[in-house]
Amino acid sequence: MTNAQTIYGSVGAEAVLTEQPDLRQYLTGISTSFGYVLSDKNGNTFYTDTRYLEAATAALKGTDIAVKKFEGPLENLLKGYKEVAVPLSRTTYPEYKRLKDAGLKIVDSDKAFVNAMSIKQTYELELIQTACDITDKAFVTLLDKIQEGMSENAVAAELEYLMRKLGASGTSFDTIVAFGKNSSVPHHETGKDKLKFGDIVLIDFGCKVGGYCSDCTRTFLFGNDGKHGEFVKAYGHVLNAHMVVKEKVTDGTTGREADAFARDYLKNYGLDKYFTHSLGHGIGVNVHEHPYLSPKSEHSLKNGMVFSDEPGVYFEGDFGIRIEDTVTLKDGQVLSLTNSNKNLTVI
Amino acid sequence: MTNAQTIYGSVGAEAVLTEQPDLRQYLTGISTSFGYVLSDKNGNTFYTDTRYLEAATAALKGTDIAVKKFEGPLENLLKGYKEVAVPLSRTTYPEYKRLKDAGLKIVDSDKAFVNAMSIKQTYELELIQTACDITDKAFVTLLDKIQEGMSENAVAAELEYLMRKLGASGTSFDTIVAFGKNSSVPHHETGKDKLKFGDIVLIDFGCKVGGYCSDCTRTFLFGNDGKHGEFVKAYGHVLNAHMVVKEKVTDGTTGREADAFARDYLKNYGLDKYFTHSLGHGIGVNVHEHPYLSPKSEHSLKNGMVFSDEPGVYFEGDFGIRIEDTVTLKDGQVLSLTNSNKNLTVI
Repeated sequence: MTNAQTIYGSVGAEAVLTEQPDLRQYLTGISTSFGYVLSDKNGNTFYTDTRYLEAATAALKGTDIAVKKFEGPLENLLKGYKEVAVPLSRTTYPEYKRLKDAGLKIVDSDKAFVNAMSIKQTYELELIQTACDITDKAFVTLLDKIQEGMSENAVAAELEYLMRKLGASGTSFDTIVAFGKNSSVPHHETGKDKLKFGDIVLIDFGCKVGGYCSDCTRTFLFGNDGKHGEFVKAYGHVLNAHMVVKEKVTDGTTGREADAFARDYLKNYGLDKYFTHSLGHGIGVNVHEHPYLSPKSEHSLKNGMVFSDEPGVYFEGDFGIRIEDTVTLKDGQVLSLTNSNKNLTVI
Repeated sequence: MTNAQTIYGSVGAEAVLTEQPDLRQYLTGISTSFGYVLSDKNGNTFYTDTRYLEAATAALKGTDIAVKKFEGPLENLLKGYKEVAVPLSRTTYPEYKRLKDAGLKIVDSDKAFVNAMSIKQTYELELIQTACDITDKAFVTLLDKIQEGMSENAVAAELEYLMRKLGASGTSFDTIVAFGKNSSVPHHETGKDKLKFGDIVLIDFGCKVGGYCSDCTRTFLFGNDGKHGEFVKAYGHVLNAHMVVKEKVTDGTTGREADAFARDYLKNYGLDKYFTHSLGHGIGVNVHEHPYLSPKSEHSLKNGMVFSDEPGVYFEGDFGIRIEDTVTLKDGQVLSLTNSNKNLTVI
């Protein structure tokens, strides 16, 4: 049974219509830029255009998803139904109005997708683990290649190339490479600045494998110029905050509680006011998805979920530190899926 | 004056609120994953979170866009207004309802964005030209590096690395590399198949510079095994179809007419039924945007627009050909922005 029929069963509407690329990928297992998955009591059909027909037909052969050419208009697919479920938070107002105008009762499929997609199945965990392994291997290889005078862009290019050669289909987001004081900008735009001896280096990166993402951040020193006492002290605290989360989070911890484990730890050292973002986010087909780990999140962390643990501190105009792993919850324990060295490194 | 005030002037609503990442980038010139741009008669404000505050403040210093921390909820930003404009086709139903529930009259800013963003300004054309130059240079270098036994993924990795090293910030979409019969799938998913002597190679690729995209497709032969008579014949027809579009399109041509120039040409050789997608699409901050060049499009092609000219033919299970340039209209003439060799190449 594919995910399409699982979602149909859990929504409980007469028909379930899904158009959003990431949800469509979850349902069909293949990446396409156009199409609709329609499920009802008779089964599932993936309607797409001629760019994808041949590949989709081959990929879905033998599954419970039939493939047909989308002839349009959308209303034709929905003839005969009285109600249809769509993911409301992802449905535009004109799309909503169009379904309403066609006389359909609209049911919300958001929750069914969030619930199903946030608890990873074995094949999903395997893909994410593969993406994380590539992330780790590429990073270790990169450390040997980083040299004085390289630009942030050049380091990012090298890292992305390594991940690609190791089997990634691409990056899961724009790689962040920040040298020196650029590290104080949590989402620095990788640029032309060149690496100097003694620079702090912050790299936030991830790749995709089979449509699933990894996400990892490391901060380290490029040579020790002896001027980084404050950095070394703060690094230890951020690493401990990261580890406290791994120790304390269990099945049923809320996103708010997880965030507080790190924030409260940093507070002991007066660092909480420099932790200017939230602790983490779910990771799957999307690099940011349910659950969210933030001061206001009541999302419940459950066995089988995959999320980031990424405390950071940022001293504007001076430097920043972030330490991030992609992790999963298994039998109530946090299991790290990215595993490259997090002890303070000087290369 | 930034684009924010231009859009505000053209929408004509009391306030203009913009949240979508690509539109936000157009308004502010910087790439962010969270924020709102709000414009009214007093000026423009970019509300964002702590991840971007420092960088956005520096980037927008001296412009007519103030930067403030978003404190939320959204309703607070909109207090005192009676109406607000949002891009309706990009606004979700819950977002729409939230504004309605706050008692606001909702105006549609879609057209203002489409009109402004489709006619490129000088700085936008320069960024796209830079992206296209990188695309060309990377492709020429790639041709020297392609070797028998390389996988599609390896070729894509090499090409992406070359673009990145030449200054691109990333790809504008997942690179398509298709060997042999994989070329018959218009949007083939780049995979592990290995290059063999005599293979047809189709590569569809592009990069981003300063947030703007390039898009280019080339089809060529890896060694001539003398078995490609049909391919060579069809290649000539597709190239001519591509050139006919460049010759005939002028300021005021509709997307439908442009598409027909290629389609009608291919019909002379019985090839129109294998041209299974549309001729092209606008290119800018998004790799697919207004205008669309397709059998049903009444979009008017105008001086200053940038779009693709990409006829293709696909013989299922056998082979495919697509030849694509990113082009612009200048003084009623099509000007090609990607310029690597399109004559049939055997490497």
